[in-house]
Amino acid sequence: MAEHLEKEIQDAQEAVTKQGDTVRSLKASLKDGKAEKAAVDAAIQKLAELKLALEAKQKEFEKATGKVSAQSKEALRAALAGVLERRMFYIPSFKIYGSVAGFYDYGPPGCAIKQNMTQTWRNHFVLEENMLEVECPAVTPEVVLKASGHVDRFTDFMVTDAVTGECFRADHLLEGHLEALLEDKKNPPSPEKVKEIRELLAGVGELKQDTMAAALKEYNVRAPGTGNDISPPFPFNLMFKTSIGPRGDMVGYLRPETAQGIFVNFRDLLYYNGGKLPFAAAQIGNSYRNEISPRAGLLRVREFTQAEIEHFVNGADKSHPKFASVADLKPLLYSRALQMGEEKKAQPMSLGEAVAQGIIANETLAYFIGRTWLFFCKVGINPERMRFRQHLQHEMAHYATDCWDGEVETTYGWVECVGLADRSAYDLKAHSSMSKIDLTAFEKFPEPRLEEVVKVVPNNKELGAVFKKDQKAVKEALEALDKGAAMELKAKLDAGETTKVAGFDIKPGMVDIRKVTEKVAGRTYTPSVIEPSFGIGRIMYCMFEHCYYTREGDETRAVMGFKPLVAPTKATVFPLVQKPALNETASKISRDLTAAGLSNIIDTTGNTIGKRYARTDEIGVPFAVTVDFASVEGDGSVTLRERDSMAQVRVPQGEVAAVIRALVDDRSTWAEVTEKYPAQKATADDE
Amino acid sequence: MAEHLEKEIQDAQEAVTKQGDTVRSLKASLKDGKAEKAAVDAAIQKLAELKLALEAKQKEFEKATGKVSAQSKEALRAALAGVLERRMFYIPSFKIYGSVAGFYDYGPPGCAIKQNMTQTWRNHFVLEENMLEVECPAVTPEVVLKASGHVDRFTDFMVTDAVTGECFRADHLLEGHLEALLEDKKNPPSPEKVKEIRELLAGVGELKQDTMAAALKEYNVRAPGTGNDISPPFPFNLMFKTSIGPRGDMVGYLRPETAQGIFVNFRDLLYYNGGKLPFAAAQIGNSYRNEISPRAGLLRVREFTQAEIEHFVNGADKSHPKFASVADLKPLLYSRALQMGEEKKAQPMSLGEAVAQGIIANETLAYFIGRTWLFFCKVGINPERMRFRQHLQHEMAHYATDCWDGEVETTYGWVECVGLADRSAYDLKAHSSMSKIDLTAFEKFPEPRLEEVVKVVPNNKELGAVFKKDQKAVKEALEALDKGAAMELKAKLDAGETTKVAGFDIKPGMVDIRKVTEKVAGRTYTPSVIEPSFGIGRIMYCMFEHCYYTREGDETRAVMGFKPLVAPTKATVFPLVQKPALNETASKISRDLTAAGLSNIIDTTGNTIGKRYARTDEIGVPFAVTVDFASVEGDGSVTLRERDSMAQVRVPQGEVAAVIRALVDDRSTWAEVTEKYPAQKATADDE
Repeated sequence: MAEHLEKEIQDAQEAVTKQGDTVRSLKASLKDGKAEKAAVDAAIQKLAELKLALEAKQKEFEKATGKVSAQSKEALRAALAGVLERRMFYIPSFKIYGSVAGFYDYGPPGCAIKQNMTQTWRNHFVLEENMLEVECPAVTPEVVLKASGHVDRFTDFMVTDAVTGECFRADHLLEGHLEALLEDKKNPPSPEKVKEIRELLAGVGELKQDTMAAALKEYNVRAPGTGNDISPPFPFNLMFKTSIGPRGDMVGYLRPETAQGIFVNFRDLLYYNGGKLPFAAAQIGNSYRNEISPRAGLLRVREFTQAEIEHFVNGADKSHPKFASVADLKPLLYSRALQMGEEKKAQPMSLGEAVAQGIIANETLAYFIGRTWLFFCKVGINPERMRFRQHLQHEMAHYATDCWDGEVETTYGWVECVGLADRSAYDLKAHSSMSKIDLTAFEKFPEPRLEEVVKVVPNNKELGAVFKKDQKAVKEALEALDKGAAMELKAKLDAGETTKVAGFDIKPGMVDIRKVTEKVAGRTYTPSVIEPSFGIGRIMYCMFEHCYYTREGDETRAVMGFKPLVAPTKATVFPLVQKPALNETASKISRDLTAAGLSNIIDTTGNTIGKRYARTDEIGVPFAVTVDFASVEGDGSVTLRERDSMAQVRVPQGEVAAVIRALVDDRSTWAEVTEKYPAQKATADDE
Repeated sequence: MAEHLEKEIQDAQEAVTKQGDTVRSLKASLKDGKAEKAAVDAAIQKLAELKLALEAKQKEFEKATGKVSAQSKEALRAALAGVLERRMFYIPSFKIYGSVAGFYDYGPPGCAIKQNMTQTWRNHFVLEENMLEVECPAVTPEVVLKASGHVDRFTDFMVTDAVTGECFRADHLLEGHLEALLEDKKNPPSPEKVKEIRELLAGVGELKQDTMAAALKEYNVRAPGTGNDISPPFPFNLMFKTSIGPRGDMVGYLRPETAQGIFVNFRDLLYYNGGKLPFAAAQIGNSYRNEISPRAGLLRVREFTQAEIEHFVNGADKSHPKFASVADLKPLLYSRALQMGEEKKAQPMSLGEAVAQGIIANETLAYFIGRTWLFFCKVGINPERMRFRQHLQHEMAHYATDCWDGEVETTYGWVECVGLADRSAYDLKAHSSMSKIDLTAFEKFPEPRLEEVVKVVPNNKELGAVFKKDQKAVKEALEALDKGAAMELKAKLDAGETTKVAGFDIKPGMVDIRKVTEKVAGRTYTPSVIEPSFGIGRIMYCMFEHCYYTREGDETRAVMGFKPLVAPTKATVFPLVQKPALNETASKISRDLTAAGLSNIIDTTGNTIGKRYARTDEIGVPFAVTVDFASVEGDGSVTLRERDSMAQVRVPQGEVAAVIRALVDDRSTWAEVTEKYPAQKATADDE
């Protein structure tokens, strides 16, 4: 039964897609005068009918099986993609040349949303915390990425089709193969085999080159499409490589993350901050990863915008002065324990509790989890469909203290949009060691402390006499001894033993070693870094999915329910009919809105109000102002309509810009507006 | 005399630079507790004295010679660079690894200015004109840049040191050599030679490979530093090359300009715009040029931010509906005629006049010149030190109709910051021809027109009988004939002649050719494009130079006179002394400013007010609010100080945020503020 329905849904989906193409091409011909209006209308009508048929099939399936069909997810994704591409939120880049996988262009509404999103991020993080914002180049000399480990380790395993040479990501291939085995209805695997496959699947991302090779061999994975043999897996570096300067001898890469630009500037940033810690630096910019096989639209692309924070802090004290402001938030946390447990489900938990119980490593990391949760809510991610997943021990780099991913649920599953990591002092130490530049901070003790130190004083005269030209080397070797080694040497010399240091025979009397107590004003240390790292494109895509909906009984009409803050256009202005007086008033209102900093469009197409609402719903305009005869001849009021409730009120013309401004800034709610202003009943024609 | 002074100035400059380094290193040691405060103060005092000595020498020189000394320019540049780097407006990238020429990082104030600058640009151009903003990737497949001509022609001539292999830009080398010849005091060239050198210098940028080679040879130009022979000049492509995808067979480049991303999207943008022309698209983003020898700081870098507009218009009508709004502006125009004339000096001229006289090719181009001039003024470029220079005929690409550069005068000379070009239909035609995708627009005539067309109707039966399998090819060749060729063929056939078409013998009777009159509804055409292209970093640098000044009698103290609109921080708040009550009020005012969207900093260092003003002057904060005892115990007013006039007024605490907001938004002037609020006299300690 269910299988039968699935097939029908698939067919219905194909029919919708095909008809959609027909409509688009007819519309294009209409512009050139090569098609008739009537033909276009008929095609649109047919598309609407096909969509209704598809929805009916999907409902039937969901009723019969109690689950959301894969096709329903597919359908949602396809319908959303249709809106996003048709309204030019984003489109594949270089389309006229056949596109290149993994590259997208933002069109006008996408550009506007992206700016609103990054500006919101800047206000929410950079301004709120007085972070130091920097902007560094994408082209990066090799030495920087050698130090960071990217040159050696920023790789994915790749296999090639032994005949065609086509390239695949080994983990994707293995995953697909294993999932197909699990779903194989004809030759279902034994319960033991299922368990084995499930376990392998859970760890595919962590396989090393040899274990990956073994798994591909064991399951006899073959090249997709051709069924040919595949090569053994080998590491492929994901950085785009280039050459800097005319000589061709300076290797450069496009940065795979913006973080390194901050680390290499640590010294200047510390100086800028008056030598004080903790402080955070931030960067918004593009990063590049030459993915082996980009897929899933904006979720895995080769050029993308990151917003990264590096919060530098004394490793000995990771408390956060503003932690109390987020301690009571209860995001869904998917801790290591919950992932290893039976239910495998995230649970809401207050951040205060999570730190107290040691689930989140420290206050600063938890503070940023809380701030991230608030940011997600602000830009329109559904809080019930986001969670913070802790990295399992083996997922983390050896130096990391604790890592959490901010994940959002979509039709593609849970998508990682933010990484929050306590990276300890790894990055600064790596750059300091490679560059030989001191990247430490100085901590002045509140009071100077008395500390026991070991002093090593070589006897220069004696050393000179014995070692001659090697005197300096011996002296340096002795002075370089650490506390423990020096005390050990002292014990031996005191016992009259001759002892080798750096290959030289040291005899009693050659060096004086003793413990003394000294006043110490402070200490030098390499700061730890806590890194929240955001993928702006991914957050945008997840937001698109969460905001997309259709209204009950009007399933062919898409609504993008953007938060007013991120909506590309805040308001549309319609004259009810095309009359000079109405157009004039509409223009005046549009100018008022612009003066209030509210992006807006006037629609004087003369279409019915209902059609005009449909167009603005589709690009997610939250408010619409209609100018009618009462606006010019009566009390001068206009109709203000809110997109999601479709409720309408009458607002005096002169107040409408201020009312919308307050709604966009979250200084007022639609409930308050409906309380203050009289309702206007929508007519049948309106919607 | 002058030469003697020049040497003295140079020595004084070196002393200042050296002492500056000493101060910086002492300050750094102070943070680590490794230096004494007194030593730092003494070093600063000495630096101030050395700067005064330098200024005195420069004034002496200027008095003696009546011209601004090269050293004075150098000194200004060095002093400005000191402020810009010390306050982290921008610094060389990858400093801890020794930097890479042509790459800069923006620090916090630079980042803020850049954002203010691009946001102002967006408001001034994109929002004002309802442009379609897009964002495209920097990584670009080769085919796009092959079509645009960059793969073949985006080159500079390079020469190498025959021994060391070091690379140089041929034009820079030749220029430097010729300038040195002109300035040679020991062996001054003859008047004829001077004339010859001057002429060559004026055309260095336009030399071709052979003429460049000849010039380098004739003047015996040698490698700088070593004096070695140099190689003949050869073209070096300035694009950064990379490879897209895992196979290594898809060549990509980092885009050398953002414009191409707009051109390849023309079809979708036209559709988005409802098929209507004219319209403009815009893009702000990073571009990349692998310069042979980057120099002059932000003026010639390898990665830079562009803001480009492509205004698509019907080539037959380049009028602009809003031209009247700029027609009366009188920017300095440096037309082709003025450049070829005796005076070689730009003249102010109204844009209306310039279009009327045919100096600027059309209204749309002139409109954007006017808007660019307004933008420059808005962000703080001195209008007397900017001009629009028309390209000479030989500087323009063959397809261009008219080009003007927006140039700004700096210590480096006149710097091109904006290019404004009427590129005709070149770009769209190039991409259409390469991609085989129709990139035309349709112009519907107000009334269908009767037009005479030539109809070519092949006689299929006859062609089939004669040409057999070639019938199709012959038919297509005949139908592809243009109007003129068809009529020529008809004349010959009518005269009974057999005529070759595409190699086939066409005889009378094989084709029917005749003129007919048809109703034509419109026509298809490739739109022309007018391209204003802005280099954001260059404009920022020029703005820095124009905004930098020192006050009479206080020449050691730098002031960055930023316009409030672009200033990174709009206001500072100082408690007069460190008292809890004053700090609390200061914090409240800071919160008010933040709520009004005004970036601000509180300075509670307890330094003297004078010192605190000096610090904020240096980062160009336009307004300072001081909280004193009267603010908390008296009438509750605070002192508001304007940076450039240093005038102070008393403003009620609750009004201060609104007053500053209005000043920043240009809705009010400082003159209005001083009229409205009582003045506060500055005390000696204040400044």
